[in-house]
Amino acid sequence: MQNFTFQIPTKLIFGRGEENNVGQYVNQYATKILLHYGGGSIKRSGLYDRVVASLNEAGVQFVELGGVVPNPRVGLVRQGVALCRAEGVQLVLAVGGGSVIDSAKAIAAGVLYDGDVWELHAGGKPTGKALPVATVLTIPAAGSESSKVTVISNDDTLRKIGYHDECLRPVFSILNPELFFTLPRNQIANGVADMMCHIFERYFTQEQHTDVTDEMCEGVLRAIMRNAPLVYADPSNYDAWAEIGFAGALAHNDLLGRGRTECWACHGMEHELSAIYDVPHGAGLAVVTPAWMQYIWRENPAMFAQFACNVMGATPRRDTEAVIAEGILRLQEFFKALGLPLTLQELGVPTDRLEEMAKKTTGAWFGEEKGRGGFKKLVWQDVLAIYEMAR
Amino acid sequence: MQNFTFQIPTKLIFGRGEENNVGQYVNQYATKILLHYGGGSIKRSGLYDRVVASLNEAGVQFVELGGVVPNPRVGLVRQGVALCRAEGVQLVLAVGGGSVIDSAKAIAAGVLYDGDVWELHAGGKPTGKALPVATVLTIPAAGSESSKVTVISNDDTLRKIGYHDECLRPVFSILNPELFFTLPRNQIANGVADMMCHIFERYFTQEQHTDVTDEMCEGVLRAIMRNAPLVYADPSNYDAWAEIGFAGALAHNDLLGRGRTECWACHGMEHELSAIYDVPHGAGLAVVTPAWMQYIWRENPAMFAQFACNVMGATPRRDTEAVIAEGILRLQEFFKALGLPLTLQELGVPTDRLEEMAKKTTGAWFGEEKGRGGFKKLVWQDVLAIYEMAR
Repeated sequence: MQNFTFQIPTKLIFGRGEENNVGQYVNQYATKILLHYGGGSIKRSGLYDRVVASLNEAGVQFVELGGVVPNPRVGLVRQGVALCRAEGVQLVLAVGGGSVIDSAKAIAAGVLYDGDVWELHAGGKPTGKALPVATVLTIPAAGSESSKVTVISNDDTLRKIGYHDECLRPVFSILNPELFFTLPRNQIANGVADMMCHIFERYFTQEQHTDVTDEMCEGVLRAIMRNAPLVYADPSNYDAWAEIGFAGALAHNDLLGRGRTECWACHGMEHELSAIYDVPHGAGLAVVTPAWMQYIWRENPAMFAQFACNVMGATPRRDTEAVIAEGILRLQEFFKALGLPLTLQELGVPTDRLEEMAKKTTGAWFGEEKGRGGFKKLVWQDVLAIYEMAR
Repeated sequence: MQNFTFQIPTKLIFGRGEENNVGQYVNQYATKILLHYGGGSIKRSGLYDRVVASLNEAGVQFVELGGVVPNPRVGLVRQGVALCRAEGVQLVLAVGGGSVIDSAKAIAAGVLYDGDVWELHAGGKPTGKALPVATVLTIPAAGSESSKVTVISNDDTLRKIGYHDECLRPVFSILNPELFFTLPRNQIANGVADMMCHIFERYFTQEQHTDVTDEMCEGVLRAIMRNAPLVYADPSNYDAWAEIGFAGALAHNDLLGRGRTECWACHGMEHELSAIYDVPHGAGLAVVTPAWMQYIWRENPAMFAQFACNVMGATPRRDTEAVIAEGILRLQEFFKALGLPLTLQELGVPTDRLEEMAKKTTGAWFGEEKGRGGFKKLVWQDVLAIYEMAR
C-alpha cells in the first residue's frame, strides 16, 4: 500500500425529501447564488419549484442559468462566469446530473481565475481557488457530486478535458433517490456503467497489498450489479435506487483508490469518443472498458482473475485464462442486459478517425507521446488496438 | 435505507515516515499546542523525539502532559484542561493510542466548557465546541483517530462513559504502520477485537436494503481477519499492518453505519466491565460480543446467517441455525487464536457484581430502565443473561 492522504469534505445529505431543505443548507455558505441547471426536466418534474421555494424561504437570493447539455460546453461556462461576476454570486448551486455539476464547478473555478476558464482545463494546474459549489443530484452516474473534477468539452477544438482541484469538491450534495424515478432507461444504464467504471479505474492496479480497498471496490461493484437490474426493471424502486445512488457517490470520492496507483486509461479513451461524436459517456465506457480488459489482462492475470471471481461471480479454477475470459464476458452480458452498446458500431461511432482519437488520448496527436493509464501505460498504438478490438 | 448525512472531515495522513511531518500539519491550525501522551513508550521508541523535532522545526510551541493510562481517567483530563487554559493552548496533539486520543478530546472539549468536564460525559449533550484535536496514532484499535467520541472513566463513580460531538473529530490523524511494530501481542489482539466490534455494532441491524454498507462492513471485516494473524505472527509486517491500520480508521469514522440503525449494546456491556475491573476494552468485547450473538440471533436469523457466510466463511445451507452457530464458533476460534479471552473467567472478571453491571448498562441501576442496543433493545435482565452466558 502506498502512502496517501484522505478526507471527504463534502457533506452528503441523503434521503427522501432532502431537496426541500436546500435553502437552509445553502444559507450556511451564501446569501446570493447562481442556480445552474440543464434542460427543462427539473421544471417539468416540479423540482425547480421546490428548490426555488426552499431558497426563498431561507432568504437566499439567486440568479439562474439553464441550458447545460450532456458533455457540457465551455461556451455556457463562460456565460456563467460573466454572470457570477456581474451579480456578485457567492456559491454555485447545481441542480441536475454530472454535466450540470461539472459545468457549475468550471464556473466556480472560472470566476476566481484571472484569464479564460478553458486555460484551466487545457493547462491542468489547480489554482486552489473556486467559489463553493453545492448540488442537488438528479442522475446518479458521474460522481461529480463527490469528486474534485470537472470535465468540459470545447466545440472549437473538439477536446473534452478534465480539470482537478480539491477545492472543487461540493460543500454539500443532496441525494434523494426519489428524484431518479423519472430517468429514462438509457440514462439509467449509462449511469450504472459510468459509476462502475469509476471503480474499475481505481480497482485495476499493479500495487500489491491493497486488501481493504480491494474488498470495498468489489463490494460496492457487487451492490451496484445487484441493484441496477432492479431500477432498470422498475425505475420507481426507492430501495434499489438508494443503493445505486450511495454507490455512485462513493465510486468517485477517492476513498476506493487510496494507497493504489489508479488507471484512468478507459476514461481517456472514452473522452475522445465523446469529444468528436458527442456519445454518452457511460455508453462509451461500456464499449471501451471490456476491450481494454481483453487487451491488457496478461499484464496481471492474478488481478483479472480476482476481478472475474470476486466481482463477476466466476468460479475460481486453475485455468486462469478461462476464468478471466468468463469475467469479461459476464461484464459484457451485464452491460448488454441494460441495453448498453458493446461495440463502436452499436455506439454509432464510425471507424475512420480511430487513429486520430488514439493519438489524442496519449498526446501523440499534439506532438508529445505521453502515454495513458496507470495499470499499464498505453501508447497510441495500444489505444488504436483497443479501439479496433471494440469495432 | 434510512436518510442520513455523511462527511469525513478528518484528514487521514497515511504511510511511512509521516510522523516526521507533524509540525507542518499542526502549523496550519496552531502555534501553541498541548502535546499529550501516555507512559514512556513513545520516549523509549524515539517517537517523542521525532515529534518534538518536527514541532520545533515548524516553530510550533508546546506544553506537554503525559501519563494517560488505559481506560483514561477524568482526573488527568482535568489537569489537562487547567494546563491548556493557563498556557493559552490552541490545539491538543495526541501521540498514542485510543486512550491518549480520548483523553485529548476530553481536554479539548473541557477547555471550552464552562463547568467540570465530567458533566459533559455524565450529561451527554454535545456543546459543539472544542479546541481542535490532532493525532499521531501508535495503536490501531479504538478508531478514535477518526471518530467523534471520547470515552473517559471516573474512579470516584466507577463509570466509563462516552461523550459524542462532531467537533471532536481530529482535524488530522497521522497513521504510520511502522509505529505499530513494537506493540506487544496482547495489545495487537485487543486492537483487532476492538475494531472488528466497531464494525459489528454498525453491521448488525434490523434495517432492510443496506447492500452498500453491508458489503463494505463485510469486506473490511474480511480484510482485518486476513491480516490480523499476519501481524500477530510477525509484528514487523508493514503490508499487513497497513491493512489493519486503514481498517481501524474506517471502522469508526461512521461510513459503515450510514443509513442503518446501529446497535452498540456490546460496547455498553463492556464499558461496565472496564469501569469496575479495568480490563482491556478489546478483550472485554471479545468476551461479550459472541455471547450477545448467541443470545440475540433469533431476532433476525437472516442477518446472522449472512454474517456467518459472508464474514466468517460458513457455507450457506438450509439449516440456518447450524450455519449461524458455525459463524459464531468461528468468530470465537478466531479470537482464541489471537490469545483473546472467551469467558469472563478468562478475562479475570468475577461474577458477584453481574447484576449491578447489567443494571448500569441499561440505566436500571440509576432508577431509570432505558434499555440498551439498536438491534434489539435489551433490558437489564437480558444483559444479565448475556453476562451469564459469558461466565
